[in-house]
Order: sequence, then C-alpha cells, then structure tokens
Amino acid sequence: MKNIQGAVFDLYGTLYDVNSVAQVCEEVYSGHGDSISRLWRQKQLEYTWLRSLMGRYVNFEKATEDALRFTCTHLGLSLDDETHQRLSDAYLHLTPYADTADALRRLKAAGLPLGIISNGSHCSIEQVVTNSEMNWAFDQLISVEDVQVFKPDSRVYSLAEKRMGFPKENILFVSSNAWDASAASNFGFPVCWINRQNGAFDELDAKPTHVVRNLAEMSNWLVNSLD
Amino acid sequence: MKNIQGAVFDLYGTLYDVNSVAQVCEEVYSGHGDSISRLWRQKQLEYTWLRSLMGRYVNFEKATEDALRFTCTHLGLSLDDETHQRLSDAYLHLTPYADTADALRRLKAAGLPLGIISNGSHCSIEQVVTNSEMNWAFDQLISVEDVQVFKPDSRVYSLAEKRMGFPKENILFVSSNAWDASAASNFGFPVCWINRQNGAFDELDAKPTHVVRNLAEMSNWLVNSLD
Repeated sequence: MKNIQGAVFDLYGTLYDVNSVAQVCEEVYSGHGDSISRLWRQKQLEYTWLRSLMGRYVNFEKATEDALRFTCTHLGLSLDDETHQRLSDAYLHLTPYADTADALRRLKAAGLPLGIISNGSHCSIEQVVTNSEMNWAFDQLISVEDVQVFKPDSRVYSLAEKRMGFPKENILFVSSNAWDASAASNFGFPVCWINRQNGAFDELDAKPTHVVRNLAEMSNWLVNSLD
Repeated sequence: MKNIQGAVFDLYGTLYDVNSVAQVCEEVYSGHGDSISRLWRQKQLEYTWLRSLMGRYVNFEKATEDALRFTCTHLGLSLDDETHQRLSDAYLHLTPYADTADALRRLKAAGLPLGIISNGSHCSIEQVVTNSEMNWAFDQLISVEDVQVFKPDSRVYSLAEKRMGFPKENILFVSSNAWDASAASNFGFPVCWINRQNGAFDELDAKPTHVVRNLAEMSNWLVNSLD
C-alpha cells in the first residue's frame, strides 16, 4: 500500500449506519422496524441494479421511495404521505459509525485526499454529510448522478478515479458492501472491505486486497502501510 | 390481445417451480431447507444482476453454484463436493407447476408458437425441459447465453423478439417474476404477470398488461381474447 495517494469511501453502510433507519421505522410501525428496514434496504439495492440494467435511471431518492412503497404493500402496512416523508427523510439524517470521524481524521493527518463515491444524488450526499457535520473530511463528494447509472456499473468506478485525480492503482477503495468491494476490485482499485458483521464475502470472482472489522482498523492498517 | 402471434415464457418460477429445490435442501440440511433455498435463490438472482452490471458474465450454472457457496458460508453450513453436486443438480430437475402442461396444450391448440426465454444456459434449459418431458410444447428454447448478459438487460428481450420472429407488440411475455415482467413491459412486450403468491408488483414504473393467479387463468384469458 506504499503507493496509495488517496482513498474513496462508499457512504451507505460504510461511513454511515443505514440501520439508524430501523429506529425511525420502529417508531412508526411498532414491532415491524427491523423487518421493514431490512426489506426496504434490500429492495432499494435491487431497484438500483434493475433500473441500471433496464436503462431506466432515476435518482436514489426516487428508487428509495419506490422501495419503501413496495415494502409497505408487501407487508400489508398502510403508508400515508406524512409517514412516507418521515421515513424517506431518515435516509438524509443517517448517523456516522462511532469510529468514522476518528478514522478519517487520521487519514487526513497522513496527508491523504479523501472522497465519497455514492449511489446517492448530489443533494442526498451533501445533506447526509452536512447533517452529520462531516464536511471537513472530504475533498470530493462524488455522485453516480453524473453518469446516470448505479453501482456496480464500471462507469461509476471510472468516475471516482477521474474525480480523485490519481491512477486507480493508487486509490484505496473502502466499502462494507461486499458486492461493491468486489466490483471495485474487478475495476482495478486496491480494496479494503469493512466486514463489520463478520459476514461471508460475495462469490463474484473478485477478492478485496485487505479485510478489517471496522474503520478504526482500516485507518491503522493504511497509515502504517504508508510509511 | 387480438394481435398476439406467439407467447414467450420465463422458466424459473413461471413454468417450473423453483421451490422444488427446497425439498432437496431439506433432505440434505434438515431444518434449514427453506432458509437455504430462499437465500440461495435471492443470491442467484443478485449474482446475475451484479455480474451483468460488472460486465463479467458467467453461465447460470456457475452463478447458481457461487450463490450456493455463499449461502452455506453465510449460514455456517459445510458444503462438500458431493452435496454441492446434488443441490446444483436439483436445478436441472425442477418440477413444472400442476397447470403448466394443460395451459401450454391449450395455447398450442389455438395455433400459437411458444417459446422459453431464460437466464439458464442452453444446456440447463434443455435438461429441465427434457427431464420433465415437455419438449413437445416449445418451438423456441432461448438462452441468454447468446447475448452473454442476464435479464433484465434489454438485449435479452430483444433476442426473444428476434427468435420468436414477430414484432414485440405481437408477442405475449409471461413471467411470475415481477422484475422480469416490469422489464419486458418496459421493452415493449404485452405482459401477463403470474401472481401465484398474491404478492406486490415491483415499483419500477412499468406495469403488466394483465395479471392472473396461475397459468390456467392465463391460458383461459389468452385463448378467449384471441377470438
């Protein structure tokens, strides 16, 4: 990792905890918070993949709202406009993980430019980062909106490389989503997979360069390997 | 539906019951049959979508085997070569639904050319059809192998149109998979969605032309509307 000149992070589930949405779901639909948020997240991802393959891009907010509507219909729960708005807003007020700020501070102190590459729209990414007072951390906030297709289409990773301004071999890609880490590795980034849940890595014939349990371990490893 | 000149069917879950795999899973991993077959099917689909987006096509057997390996690792179950082979073979010996043969017989009697368009490889489709003694029903067995990308990429639907030999407006597309039905509708086929589970349709801004509960209802509706 001696040649790393910058690092680019996935947002949802990597720097920010998507499970914080479950709490809002639980407040609205008592007893169903977990099942709603899990299915909602699953369908949200599915809709980004399916729409990318269908050539029918919509922004991430729209895909997220569509996924919520499906989830409630599927589970037989009613969804009025106010509830819809409240739940969708939860995705704009995600909580960073407890180790996010410290890890990024260490990497910045080591002189590394940092970026986010996310399925979120420009507007979503900026709101999530601003609402959590994390703007100081990032040199680049990169949205798939600029290529009108979602991860794991290679145009997304290519956009990240271009915007970070270094050759892909010199940019560390960090994600907790195994499918995202696989695709980034397939594209040619060195990849650090954050395996918070002690999960199985996806079987897509592309392995991460390094595996850690959290962002604190990632920053330790990266800073030490830069020396 | 007066102008329908042929019908093309999805295979897995539409003509053939993928839940028959659950029984074999239960025989091998007692008490886990349902959870294995459900996660296996979910990951099988995910891997077809992700690989299509990554531009890393492999055939359906390979994606299915990879999904099984992930599933067992995720659930903490061991998977030896013999078990792997036995479970993978289950996908080549799927049972048609009880109403499949009669429905297809009615459509053939009405003079309609019938086809299958499937994510399965040529070899898989032929084995499933042959093992269930259904070869008499189909004029075309169409595999995504010819375009090296999976559903719902529009090249798959375009291949089906070309092979059926009629304009897409005149080919009825039949699927029980809501995402497949959505994408086929988006492509321009009239679509009949088989909603066996009384489920919610996917929210992808594309609706089916007609919805029925099973293939018997589909054949009634189609034959009557041809008159």
